[in-house]
Amino acid sequence: MTYVQPWQVRYYEADQQGVVFNAWYLAWFDEAFTAFLRDKGLSVFEMANQGINFQLVHSEIDWISGVRFGDEVSIAVQPARIGTTSFDVHYTVLREDLVTCTAKIVYVSISSDGAGKQPVAPVLRKALT
Amino acid sequence: MTYVQPWQVRYYEADQQGVVFNAWYLAWFDEAFTAFLRDKGLSVFEMANQGINFQLVHSEIDWISGVRFGDEVSIAVQPARIGTTSFDVHYTVLREDLVTCTAKIVYVSISSDGAGKQPVAPVLRKALT
Amino acid sequence: MTYVQPWQVRYYEADQQGVVFNAWYLAWFDEAFTAFLRDKGLSVFEMANQGINFQLVHSEIDWISGVRFGDEVSIAVQPARIGTTSFDVHYTVLREDLVTCTAKIVYVSISSDGAGKQPVAPVLRKALT
Amino acid sequence: MTYVQPWQVRYYEADQQGVVFNAWYLAWFDEAFTAFLRDKGLSVFEMANQGINFQLVHSEIDWISGVRFGDEVSIAVQPARIGTTSFDVHYTVLREDLVTCTAKIVYVSISSDGAGKQPVAPVLRKALT
Repeated sequence: MTYVQPWQVRYYEADQQGVVFNAWYLAWFDEAFTAFLRDKGLSVFEMANQGINFQLVHSEIDWISGVRFGDEVSIAVQPARIGTTSFDVHYTVLREDLVTCTAKIVYVSISSDGAGKQPVAPVLRKALT
Repeated sequence: MTYVQPWQVRYYEADQQGVVFNAWYLAWFDEAFTAFLRDKGLSVFEMANQGINFQLVHSEIDWISGVRFGDEVSIAVQPARIGTTSFDVHYTVLREDLVTCTAKIVYVSISSDGAGKQPVAPVLRKALT
Repeated sequence: MTYVQPWQVRYYEADQQGVVFNAWYLAWFDEAFTAFLRDKGLSVFEMANQGINFQLVHSEIDWISGVRFGDEVSIAVQPARIGTTSFDVHYTVLREDLVTCTAKIVYVSISSDGAGKQPVAPVLRKALT
Repeated sequence: MTYVQPWQVRYYEADQQGVVFNAWYLAWFDEAFTAFLRDKGLSVFEMANQGINFQLVHSEIDWISGVRFGDEVSIAVQPARIGTTSFDVHYTVLREDLVTCTAKIVYVSISSDGAGKQPVAPVLRKALT
């Protein structure tokens, strides 16, 4: 199921061309995934304290058009493939009903103690399915 | 020819896991491309005033390992495909001699006045070849 | 009247000491002021299009303690002095009921066309009183 | 003695008004202070590992005019008052020879282990004098 998060563009995220600078999209996806998990009752903060962590290993972003400060924006979060130690999440940035950007991010499940990869934790797997 | 830009990690770019947060990589590539062009005698600022502009339409990033504040980092900029109205640039983040991240960004050549796509300007084409 | 905006700390805003990096506070105050105005029915975006703009000329920030990703944070926005062409706004960052940071920002009212200072527009003056 | 650091404005730091967004100034001062210490042979990274740390407790910034992407900018770093457990540093942002911004930041010396305030370490005191 797709989760849709309404999104406020911050004034400073728009550059002098008037559209949101590209790097902020990755920052947005990070926040949108946190919101998706919160909606499922999971706290990234508490999971990290329980040893459940993840990091990005791959991202692909396609920009179709820009978004501006003042635009009505939302971000759709759609979990996709789940493997043993990694999972994909698809993101779509919408301006009203128009898709302006699509992205795919591959996360790898890691332990919080630096020991490296670990199987996707059951609570996380459940939230993603 | 690959251009290599020595790079200072800014303190605030490292997140609470101690490694540079993913979104800063896109910001870095933007700065590294500006530095590459400066090295070729081109100013992004002056080009924009002459109607020569470009924007990102696609990015792919692969993270192999993180970089930390205090690490000796450099960014290699390697122009790749050049088409009529778009071009690709490859980026490699190095910690000393170790590749920690690779990326490919596709830029489309646009006019500064908002009229849309235009052929890659000769000065830019020359710098990329 | 004080306006209080609940606030989500973004993951990347916490640095490797685990607390929000100082520069994000100014970014937060900017967003909180936008939210304050939105609450009063004013859009920064639409005001700018009508020639009503403002910029920072002075800021003072006192940090008492840090805030962390996962903390329950809110930002109180309290308009203070209003002069002919400038006004002060006080900000307080709260972690639950604890004050962690206080700030005062002096804004000057400017026209959107670059002509410089202008009297604080009536709609803005009303919102601040 | 004043230390002057040449400074490249990053493209994304300029907002849609075309001037650097206010929050980046605090980020710049952080980097400029790191550069000042590096010039004195000190690494913030190594000092932190030796238990020598500091954090901001107060900042005051006055903006006189904006700086733009493409401007020739430098940041002057001037240590001022040094007390037992805190010290002040003054910053000046210059566009060519013109002062565009002045700031004063008060830092408190803390231990890296979270134990709180500690006297300014001799190596740091020497660099600041």
